[in-house]
Amino acid sequence: MDDRQQAIAAAARGARRAGWVLGQISGPERRQILLAMADALERADLRAAVLRANAADVADAQAARDRGELAAALVDRLVLDDRKLVGVVDGLRQLAGQADPLGKVSVDRDLDDGLHLRRVACPLGVIAVVFEARPDAVPQIAGLAVRSGNAVVLKGGREAARTNAALVDVLRRALADQGFDPGALVLLEDRADVDTVLTLDRDIDLVVARGSAAFVRHVQQASRIPVLAHAEGICHLVLHASAEPEMAARIAVDAKCGYPSACNAIETLLWMPGAEAALDRCVAELASRGVEMRACEATRARHPGLVAATAADFGHEFGALVLAVRRVDDLTAALAHIEQHGSGHTESIVAEDEGAAAEFLAHVDAACVFHNASTRFADGYRFGLGAEVGISTSKLHARGPVGAEGLVTYRWLLRGSGQIAGDYGPGKRRFRHRDR
Amino acid sequence: MDDRQQAIAAAARGARRAGWVLGQISGPERRQILLAMADALERADLRAAVLRANAADVADAQAARDRGELAAALVDRLVLDDRKLVGVVDGLRQLAGQADPLGKVSVDRDLDDGLHLRRVACPLGVIAVVFEARPDAVPQIAGLAVRSGNAVVLKGGREAARTNAALVDVLRRALADQGFDPGALVLLEDRADVDTVLTLDRDIDLVVARGSAAFVRHVQQASRIPVLAHAEGICHLVLHASAEPEMAARIAVDAKCGYPSACNAIETLLWMPGAEAALDRCVAELASRGVEMRACEATRARHPGLVAATAADFGHEFGALVLAVRRVDDLTAALAHIEQHGSGHTESIVAEDEGAAAEFLAHVDAACVFHNASTRFADGYRFGLGAEVGISTSKLHARGPVGAEGLVTYRWLLRGSGQIAGDYGPGKRRFRHRDR
Repeated sequence: MDDRQQAIAAAARGARRAGWVLGQISGPERRQILLAMADALERADLRAAVLRANAADVADAQAARDRGELAAALVDRLVLDDRKLVGVVDGLRQLAGQADPLGKVSVDRDLDDGLHLRRVACPLGVIAVVFEARPDAVPQIAGLAVRSGNAVVLKGGREAARTNAALVDVLRRALADQGFDPGALVLLEDRADVDTVLTLDRDIDLVVARGSAAFVRHVQQASRIPVLAHAEGICHLVLHASAEPEMAARIAVDAKCGYPSACNAIETLLWMPGAEAALDRCVAELASRGVEMRACEATRARHPGLVAATAADFGHEFGALVLAVRRVDDLTAALAHIEQHGSGHTESIVAEDEGAAAEFLAHVDAACVFHNASTRFADGYRFGLGAEVGISTSKLHARGPVGAEGLVTYRWLLRGSGQIAGDYGPGKRRFRHRDR
Repeated sequence: MDDRQQAIAAAARGARRAGWVLGQISGPERRQILLAMADALERADLRAAVLRANAADVADAQAARDRGELAAALVDRLVLDDRKLVGVVDGLRQLAGQADPLGKVSVDRDLDDGLHLRRVACPLGVIAVVFEARPDAVPQIAGLAVRSGNAVVLKGGREAARTNAALVDVLRRALADQGFDPGALVLLEDRADVDTVLTLDRDIDLVVARGSAAFVRHVQQASRIPVLAHAEGICHLVLHASAEPEMAARIAVDAKCGYPSACNAIETLLWMPGAEAALDRCVAELASRGVEMRACEATRARHPGLVAATAADFGHEFGALVLAVRRVDDLTAALAHIEQHGSGHTESIVAEDEGAAAEFLAHVDAACVFHNASTRFADGYRFGLGAEVGISTSKLHARGPVGAEGLVTYRWLLRGSGQIAGDYGPGKRRFRHRDR
């Protein structure tokens, strides 16, 4: 390990110690820290420092955009204005108001008289989160960590480096003002530092990897630490034969155009015979908003103005105002298409037919499965989790939007009065296994 | 992929299809399969075939033991007699009687009028389990898979190959007799096949790796599939100054001698000043049962007959009648020793002092933390889970003994009436987030 790697290892160890305290204090004390973080972000001088740092990041990003090195959408996402800050502060206060996820007892059982087993929620310990250049993620993730009694090691996209540093500075100050070790909140500066973090399996309990599928795969392969993959969102919208055309078009426009680079935006529209009217309305509304549609032959037979799709367009995350469109024979074919091309994120069907909706909801194996609603609802805030550390496309531990509850584990606590396993068995004592 | 690898990939794909049906049928139907499996294992001809296969495995293992190639404890573990079979059958019937883990609703929330979110438990899909030469594991794991609506790919220790094949044959027959595809239960024959399975991340959702720490590490490194690690159990028993000597000795003997190769057996005994009487009783009782104790200098000053421990003896899984013994200054030192040397499996304290017990239970970061009880209680059956697929030393998803509940995930199902995300926000509609 070189000096830099050793410094990161030391920071992770320090985060474990500092986080341990956050896990031991009471829920109201953790709540107090969240409120202090919100207050600090409202303090005029601190807020000004954050906005100044963000202005510098944005100026650089705009220059890069003008040189053609950065997409315009990424610059928009980078901007942290007064309105976004209000949202961030509001989010921290919402988290403060949420029920404490720690100490929750999920098993409470007498194995026998005087032999009492409980399964009790506790923090994971230290969580490392690698995320894109999106400054509002910093207070969201830090807030979720405090809410769940964990320390956190953060690495954000480099375009937001100054903003993130300013935000972390404010949040660490709030921790210190409340009498806690600010070492519970660590900000990494360099992408190479992430690889160091991935080797620290004694001090990091979970890696949340947000980003491209290739990046997430790299993290999964490089690390023995469990990874919560927030990878691609290849989301489909299915127009059933019974789809109401107006509803279909409203949902398609929201799901494609509301925030095209979001992982919960749709990438493919599937329609089946009988859904022609819904398709027509969708195509008209999407076209009027500048969406490039890449369509199969059957779709182009009806809408000759659309671009011809290639096989690679299906199952591709465009992240832009581009949408693949394909006709499928029926609901079964739609389910098969989704199984083959989906990424297990969010899938939605527009249908008046309740039987078709029920079949869709029962059959699709994805984190989020919707009926007559936009895929854009797949979001921790919208789901009522207060915030999210990411949207997991993994099936293990936490799936879909991950809030504070996804950052806890549990311990089995057994209190006895001298019992031994040898006391139990055929011809001896029997377990009672009586839930309290 | 060579022919054999392709055959395994095809079997895994077939398991996914067959398992999908197990996840879709009703709880009572899954219950019926479990009862049919239990009945089949009681049928005279099928049971005879299993016992015959086991006799052949045991004969080979005994020969290997006589050549010094296999530990005697492994031969004992391999034996499947009538009594063990009764236990296995009883376990399947217990599983049949358990509450269905599928369909459980853990979030039931109106996001708004007519926008209803539920989080519903569903199977993981296909689970691969690699385990030691222990025939009773086969029906336990198969039973848990059926209970949780999953398919399973099994690879047991090669010493039990014929027994496992006979058991799987009986269980597959029961599946087929109930009208289900026996392809939901796949048995691998060769260790090399495990490496093929680890590459099938589209068709295998979870790998449960039981075995040595080195083997578990290999699986974690070789696979992008999430791994539930059932690795070492380096369990400690702490004698507090307030420990009651008789209780301490009974627990120490049970935890060391009951089943020395079990992962929940203790490897190290820690004692602190004031616990001398408890230590003396433990040493006397353990010595009389042939336990080799490797002790620190402070312990040997009191018990000069004990072997001198080396640093490597602490944090080592002996899996035999060997125990490391060390004096620590106080409870804090005991906690530090466990943090440094423990494997996060099971830790127990013997103490009459309630404050010390409470501190121990609050501080130790392990799957199972016990007070005045043997570490041997860390077991799915003893905890009332019916059976276990393993004891997880991971913190994610499932920790400690893993029953059927640990083999499920969930999906977020949202039913709307045309809502779009753009309807909500500042100055627009607000979410209600009202739990039902």
